[in-house]
Amino acid sequence: MRLATIRTPEGTRAVRVDEDAAVELGHPDLGALLRRPDWRTEAAAANGPRHDLAGLDYAPPVPSPEKIVCVGLNYRNHILEMGRELPEHPTLFAKFGRAQVGAHDPVVLPAGSGAVDWEAELGVYIGAEVRHATPDEARAAIAGYTVVNDVTARDFQYRSPQWLQGKTFEASTPVGPWLVVTEEERPLSRELTCTVDGELMQKADTGDLVFDPAALVAYISAIVTLAPGDLIATGTPGGVGHARKPPRYLTEGSELVTRVEGIGDCRNTLVRG
Amino acid sequence: MRLATIRTPEGTRAVRVDEDAAVELGHPDLGALLRRPDWRTEAAAANGPRHDLAGLDYAPPVPSPEKIVCVGLNYRNHILEMGRELPEHPTLFAKFGRAQVGAHDPVVLPAGSGAVDWEAELGVYIGAEVRHATPDEARAAIAGYTVVNDVTARDFQYRSPQWLQGKTFEASTPVGPWLVVTEEERPLSRELTCTVDGELMQKADTGDLVFDPAALVAYISAIVTLAPGDLIATGTPGGVGHARKPPRYLTEGSELVTRVEGIGDCRNTLVRG
Repeated sequence: MRLATIRTPEGTRAVRVDEDAAVELGHPDLGALLRRPDWRTEAAAANGPRHDLAGLDYAPPVPSPEKIVCVGLNYRNHILEMGRELPEHPTLFAKFGRAQVGAHDPVVLPAGSGAVDWEAELGVYIGAEVRHATPDEARAAIAGYTVVNDVTARDFQYRSPQWLQGKTFEASTPVGPWLVVTEEERPLSRELTCTVDGELMQKADTGDLVFDPAALVAYISAIVTLAPGDLIATGTPGGVGHARKPPRYLTEGSELVTRVEGIGDCRNTLVRG
Repeated sequence: MRLATIRTPEGTRAVRVDEDAAVELGHPDLGALLRRPDWRTEAAAANGPRHDLAGLDYAPPVPSPEKIVCVGLNYRNHILEMGRELPEHPTLFAKFGRAQVGAHDPVVLPAGSGAVDWEAELGVYIGAEVRHATPDEARAAIAGYTVVNDVTARDFQYRSPQWLQGKTFEASTPVGPWLVVTEEERPLSRELTCTVDGELMQKADTGDLVFDPAALVAYISAIVTLAPGDLIATGTPGGVGHARKPPRYLTEGSELVTRVEGIGDCRNTLVRG
């Protein structure tokens, strides 16, 4: 089951994206839906107004999440190829909700940055409030998956010891197009790719995460309550532009495609602010 | 004018704290009030139900802010005494809203940490949406001041390169008791102190900030829109427990008093979770 938030002339609408149409769920966005304890049943049964799939205008699935938690170095092969040891604990940082754009929206180049980079990631949505989760509780709290590109202004990221300012520029982070509801308990093993102007830049398997989605939910929930609609961006593999020789960056007109096989893809064009 | 959010048997209420009583403003909390363009006039004129000052139960002034932006090293004397150069750019990191507690609430010791430290700070509330603010716009966007203690689990802070996980433990960060509405445009020069079990640990002047409140608003708003109710914790001066020889930390029963002269004070007892 794929769930999305679309923009209509009357405002945003939570929808179920079926094979032949998008069906309204009776909520303004997936944030409101996910706060309902029985959201899976409700979404599966909904039979509201329908929209043609062609021309759907996707908002970020949860436009105003309470939290976006991002994870640093988390792909095993990439860490080992860099000659580093596997970390004992995840590296966590935040992103604010206003950094998000929809799956097909323009991505605004951060003003003042000359080093805007891509970071394709698997996104994990939370579907139930959870604190001090056991592994089973952590798995059960996962609503499903989405696609994220944690677009980063490297110069701002490294202006200070803390990365936040390079990570949270307004309208810089594609998320979507939808939430694919989890149907099995195993960690997801899918191909994750990022292309820029048609050139393959990143390719990895989401099964190669050091800290898989359930491990991240358990770890974060030991610190703070995770709430319905919270988004975890699980980290990016090797192949970012900043590490290339010479470095490569996104510029006006760059076409950024972020894909998780079987989940979805974000296709975004970089624009000046 | 002092504005607060208090807990009542019927839920939270935004109030104006006068000399003789707290007067309801007709909103559930200050977050809702601050989203109104004319909130200053409305708050000054309100004449709702009154509450005795004795026994007021203070919630964090904005219980669910869209953003909490924290600032790293920002006190000039402390930076210079550490032998470091004054930074060219502020160090920014985030804290999630659930980290907050009210001015007189228990502070929950982060589970699994043996290094819980104090960080007294001046807090700045945003009172208008602002993006790419000029210095004048930045000053005008400040609603006023509050008192924050950015209580930090040092062991979690330094588990990874990013500080977030040591900074955002549930119910660890006193904020309040109120928002003191700005009445003049000069940066605030007031004594900031932190005492633990009656012993003075930190003492500084908020006028010693490298990046004053308006400079922070201008800088952050160049990255992302600041919204009404957003809180900026402007950084802490020297005197934290982790830098002492031997180190000193907060433990069960510690009495933490955080004060900004003329603004207010938070008095919190540390408890086990």
